[in-house]
Amino acid sequence: MNTTRFSYPLKKIGLIGGGQLGKMTAQAAREMGFAIYVLDPQIQCPAASIADKHIIGSLYDSVKIRELAHLSDVLTYEIEHVDIETLKQLYDQGYPIYPSPYVLEVIQDKWRQKQVLAQHHIPVPKFQAVDDLNATFLAQAKFPLVQKARRGGYDGKGVAILRSIEDKEKILPVPSMIEEFVAFKKELAIMIARDKQGNIACYPVVEMVFDDRTNICDIVAAPATISPALAEQARKIAVDAICALDGIGVFGVEMFLTQDDQILVNEIAPRPHNSGHYTIEACLTSQFEQLVRIVSDLPLGSAKLLSPAVMLNLLGEAGYQGRPVITGLVETLSIAGLSFHFYDKSITRPFRKMGHITLLADDIETALMALDNVKKTLKIQGEDMIHD
Amino acid sequence: MNTTRFSYPLKKIGLIGGGQLGKMTAQAAREMGFAIYVLDPQIQCPAASIADKHIIGSLYDSVKIRELAHLSDVLTYEIEHVDIETLKQLYDQGYPIYPSPYVLEVIQDKWRQKQVLAQHHIPVPKFQAVDDLNATFLAQAKFPLVQKARRGGYDGKGVAILRSIEDKEKILPVPSMIEEFVAFKKELAIMIARDKQGNIACYPVVEMVFDDRTNICDIVAAPATISPALAEQARKIAVDAICALDGIGVFGVEMFLTQDDQILVNEIAPRPHNSGHYTIEACLTSQFEQLVRIVSDLPLGSAKLLSPAVMLNLLGEAGYQGRPVITGLVETLSIAGLSFHFYDKSITRPFRKMGHITLLADDIETALMALDNVKKTLKIQGEDMIHD
Repeated sequence: MNTTRFSYPLKKIGLIGGGQLGKMTAQAAREMGFAIYVLDPQIQCPAASIADKHIIGSLYDSVKIRELAHLSDVLTYEIEHVDIETLKQLYDQGYPIYPSPYVLEVIQDKWRQKQVLAQHHIPVPKFQAVDDLNATFLAQAKFPLVQKARRGGYDGKGVAILRSIEDKEKILPVPSMIEEFVAFKKELAIMIARDKQGNIACYPVVEMVFDDRTNICDIVAAPATISPALAEQARKIAVDAICALDGIGVFGVEMFLTQDDQILVNEIAPRPHNSGHYTIEACLTSQFEQLVRIVSDLPLGSAKLLSPAVMLNLLGEAGYQGRPVITGLVETLSIAGLSFHFYDKSITRPFRKMGHITLLADDIETALMALDNVKKTLKIQGEDMIHD
Repeated sequence: MNTTRFSYPLKKIGLIGGGQLGKMTAQAAREMGFAIYVLDPQIQCPAASIADKHIIGSLYDSVKIRELAHLSDVLTYEIEHVDIETLKQLYDQGYPIYPSPYVLEVIQDKWRQKQVLAQHHIPVPKFQAVDDLNATFLAQAKFPLVQKARRGGYDGKGVAILRSIEDKEKILPVPSMIEEFVAFKKELAIMIARDKQGNIACYPVVEMVFDDRTNICDIVAAPATISPALAEQARKIAVDAICALDGIGVFGVEMFLTQDDQILVNEIAPRPHNSGHYTIEACLTSQFEQLVRIVSDLPLGSAKLLSPAVMLNLLGEAGYQGRPVITGLVETLSIAGLSFHFYDKSITRPFRKMGHITLLADDIETALMALDNVKKTLKIQGEDMIHD
């Protein structure tokens, strides 16, 4: 195909996973005239009604993935937990998939991911694979330490922090790796977009603040309040990490800023990332549009930040489930520069990611104060109370 | 309904018309968790696949409009040419419709529109209703003059410029009004959002440049390069005009800046407007989100301009029809700060509005130069040549 000539629809993009990242990717694609087909097991998944077609099936269903590939010109995914063997077979037959399933395979296994990064001299916390955190291991272990399931974790799931041998009942009974416990000053993140020619669009360094209750990223402030030198160092490390993986696509690089101002890569997500939602309003090109551009052989857009921004995840309130009921929206939307996103999930659950808001403001401090009020005002409850 | 409490979906919005304005309204609505139902006669109208439901039917079909109203919590429209009698009946029965069909009725008739504005001392070109531009009338007419069909015009259709009596074969054989021919310096426009409480969000004054071939708005530059005093005067006139109409909704106010720096209101559109597309990327709240907020009893968003911006309409190339084929997209998207919108029209025709691009830039002059290149590079042709 001549890349300077597109017939309508510009391209048919197959997307594995139809959650909120899929919905926002689909919206970016549809704005630009792309067709988008989504595979997701849930009939009412967030991306379903934005997509041109929704194939209902498991992300591990080889037949459904092949059906999606057959309909589409190119495949991508919004979640790591997919049938990688099928993707590898398709890829080996020449079917375009971005990021490559071989990159995904490395990232899926947290130990291999760290190993590749360490081999390329990317700074990471000290780590080691451990088949079994048995008595022998624990007897000589240096606490505190972090156990991570090698596969399958997300949003704090699959991670156990062991502060002493007393915490041994927290140990996850799965193949895992252990890492030193990093007493960080800040958690940082950067979105990196890298195209097939190796061109890179690097978004600003942002700061992530996590909810203590859930270990879900709660607030993202863009840009992070760190020195320009540290920001530059973080950007270099993030870019080097994606180059080390030879990643093509959009990547969220999560990093620790340690007490002594070291930057260590914590984890990489091979897809649009919660820490990049602010790019929709605050950057010239959103992370979602970048993914659409990359998989479609279009040039990268500018990642320039137009305005400081703060993003707040809207989680389902504890104690409620069922059809969402939103209170405080009028008060919230009266804040100038605030955008409200709701993910079209028809059922809320405690701490489920139901939406987010982004607030542009001249400075981060003012925006954070406004978000504090939003957190008190805006509630996503369900029609049903959960009784203990 | 308590406006501070929303159940999911937040509200069901019924939209009459599913063209590009409908598509972009639907996208804003879907981002925020609203359901949107669209009435449009075309199966593959731009809004069809973004909407939750598409009722296929004429915009003048009373039964279909009632069906849409029955499904929805509130009605709005993206086009003036709809069955106003049905809307008035629904409105009189207490059904919420914004803008009110009585405001729409005034705006639909260009003569009544001008009359209301003149009664409220809004400056407008000299005008008069004329049932018949017959020989008697023409014998004493002062040329040049502009004949406008009282109803049904859009994109330059329904307007005849009569430079002398020689142009009499251009006369439109419909009920019309005549206006003095305004030799303007610039054509300006402002988007005004006004809610039920009378709160107003006023967007910047922009400059519209029209294509000589088609009289379709070609380029919009935001902000207009006029003095702050003139801009303030234009904003005041536009706000006064919407207040004079008691308009609730989103309105495009088109104005002339005359050779002697008078501002005259040319026409008002009671809906999102081509001159406001730039608000998607360049303003804190887009014109489409404002409409969604207003019809849903949510507070107005800020209309602040984040960055100067220039918008270019992408029209189907002359000489082509059929399935769109886009060339030059790679070159175009390599321009930093450029966003590409394609309206999902499966058939192109000469000068059909197929999409638009918005370019954010530090200054308008640079952006206009870049757009000049885009106009040379980016072509939307059809698969079929049109043979004369």
